[in-house]
Amino acid sequence: MSKLSETVSKIKKIDYSLAEKTQKRLDNLTKPQGSLGRLEEFAKQMVEITGAESPSLKNKVIFTMAADHGVVDEGVSAFPKEVTAQMVYNFLRGGAGINVLANHVGARVVVVDMGVAEEIQKSKVKNQNFKDKKINLGTKNFVKGPAMTKDEAIKSIEAGIEVFEEELRKGIDIVGTGDMGIGNTTPSSAIAAVVTGRAVEEVTGRGTGVDDKTLSNKIRVIKKAIEVNRSDPKDGIDVLSKVGGFEIGGLAGIILGAASKRIPVVIDGFISGAAALVAYSIEPKTKDYMIAAHCSVERGHRIVLNYIGLKPVLDLDLRLGEGTGAALAMSIVEAGVKILTQMATFEGAGVSERRGT
Amino acid sequence: MSKLSETVSKIKKIDYSLAEKTQKRLDNLTKPQGSLGRLEEFAKQMVEITGAESPSLKNKVIFTMAADHGVVDEGVSAFPKEVTAQMVYNFLRGGAGINVLANHVGARVVVVDMGVAEEIQKSKVKNQNFKDKKINLGTKNFVKGPAMTKDEAIKSIEAGIEVFEEELRKGIDIVGTGDMGIGNTTPSSAIAAVVTGRAVEEVTGRGTGVDDKTLSNKIRVIKKAIEVNRSDPKDGIDVLSKVGGFEIGGLAGIILGAASKRIPVVIDGFISGAAALVAYSIEPKTKDYMIAAHCSVERGHRIVLNYIGLKPVLDLDLRLGEGTGAALAMSIVEAGVKILTQMATFEGAGVSERRGT
Repeated sequence: MSKLSETVSKIKKIDYSLAEKTQKRLDNLTKPQGSLGRLEEFAKQMVEITGAESPSLKNKVIFTMAADHGVVDEGVSAFPKEVTAQMVYNFLRGGAGINVLANHVGARVVVVDMGVAEEIQKSKVKNQNFKDKKINLGTKNFVKGPAMTKDEAIKSIEAGIEVFEEELRKGIDIVGTGDMGIGNTTPSSAIAAVVTGRAVEEVTGRGTGVDDKTLSNKIRVIKKAIEVNRSDPKDGIDVLSKVGGFEIGGLAGIILGAASKRIPVVIDGFISGAAALVAYSIEPKTKDYMIAAHCSVERGHRIVLNYIGLKPVLDLDLRLGEGTGAALAMSIVEAGVKILTQMATFEGAGVSERRGT
Repeated sequence: MSKLSETVSKIKKIDYSLAEKTQKRLDNLTKPQGSLGRLEEFAKQMVEITGAESPSLKNKVIFTMAADHGVVDEGVSAFPKEVTAQMVYNFLRGGAGINVLANHVGARVVVVDMGVAEEIQKSKVKNQNFKDKKINLGTKNFVKGPAMTKDEAIKSIEAGIEVFEEELRKGIDIVGTGDMGIGNTTPSSAIAAVVTGRAVEEVTGRGTGVDDKTLSNKIRVIKKAIEVNRSDPKDGIDVLSKVGGFEIGGLAGIILGAASKRIPVVIDGFISGAAALVAYSIEPKTKDYMIAAHCSVERGHRIVLNYIGLKPVLDLDLRLGEGTGAALAMSIVEAGVKILTQMATFEGAGVSERRGT
């Protein structure tokens, strides 16, 4: 059995039977019933996912996966392609947005080269949180044919699973997804359009901030790519290979790997959402292991979240990616778990319960 | 000059002139311009409030103020009155929701007895984070006349200012407001109705979770109280004295005190919102020092936020009070400041900027 099918076969339904018991425990804490709203929901979900009565989310890890995209040749991004590699070095030196926010919430960032278009110089790296899983030097321009071979698509997902499993040995209680790849809102919009069946215009936004002219070009490019590639909307691997990206495949692998080990996974923004669509179409049970970090400014993100059935934790007009929203959201989820595990009960604190009305 | 008028006279407009310069610095960091959305706004607001180019929000303090309410005699709450004092002990032992969440974000909780209906036993307390500023043993039932005298209203606000100034000596970079008081959504709804001019039904919710019958009684009680007391909607002190509460006055004092010292203040939920209405009606310039932590489930909270002109940071279906939403939100605001102060610049990180389009 392949790594991928072995992993998928291990993904089980989460244990819904624990919800009622957990809610009873929450109701016994010194607060009006249900008054901590979504924090209580997060606590229940974490119990259901992990099967632990009192889970801990101490070990927080964000996987920031980087890759390049051949479709950038079509002029779909406001930034030049070399920025992908430059940002990988920035991540490894700790100067990027994700480093600051991960540090703020006590999370570790693992940076993965899934397919950056140049070699990351090992001499410049010297960082134990870097993983080289390069599938290829960027995808092909998918306006002219598939972004990658089917074999590469599977390899990218399996590389994500491998990275997850390698890092799991160091301890992971909750995972966040993150991405870096100049041009990667273009494959993400293409995936969103194909899988959800919505019009390209509805799921295509300005990415890093393109102008009107570049946006209409981007929409035209995506439409053409979908027409040229004719992928099967129900086959996540086919969609990934035709109009995807290596970091998107890797993140789908992270999601599948985490679900197979009953570890909750916080999905960052639009690109991570496209990876979630791929993982979800491979195995819909992954949905219950997902927490949507936030609702991105990027047009189409809400459509992706609604398609899977996820309600975002935050809404802060973010559109950076890298896992920045995931970092902030995982801290909120952790807060919910601490409510369950650290608050006093009515009896323990000598507080009167509500009157029987 | 009284403590109150002295404090109010020190509240200055925030320094809007710093916004442009700060945005330029943000635009020079290794991310697409504006891509961290509201985090960037928070960073700018903190610079404008403090006047510091690179503010730090390390010292986070939440003031959880407790008091009782005579109007509880009218059967407006699902919990018995003695819970207010019981929860004060719970706060001081660290078992309440606010303790868990403040601890999660690295904030200190200062618990203040503003008017609990029984004496807090000092022998049970032994906690340096407890302040006794009791104005009276709870307010009077405001269906029958004013909740407190005008003198008590001023004293409660001044006590809040005093508490803030006492704690400021230990170091405060950002403040959160929090409340505890069985029945205190009733005065808060009354204040909201009087100040905003909206119908009582629109600003009255279920508090700790009352049933339909108790809710209609609560609405009837508030309408009667407003009719009996005829307060001046433009005079925050008059409104506070007629239909307010001691913890609401104390929190208004915290807000005024913080603004007078150029310290940002994170407003928690509905009761803190009522306190913000009082502070805002005394001095509208306080608005710029406020951050709305979240949008509460409590009906009327959004009306209060819109009236002042505040956009909440979080929306997590919270309705506990105590400062729980403020704790989570202040950590998000701090994240925004760290973006400004800790991220690498394009030049520093050797990352190419966007193409001139």
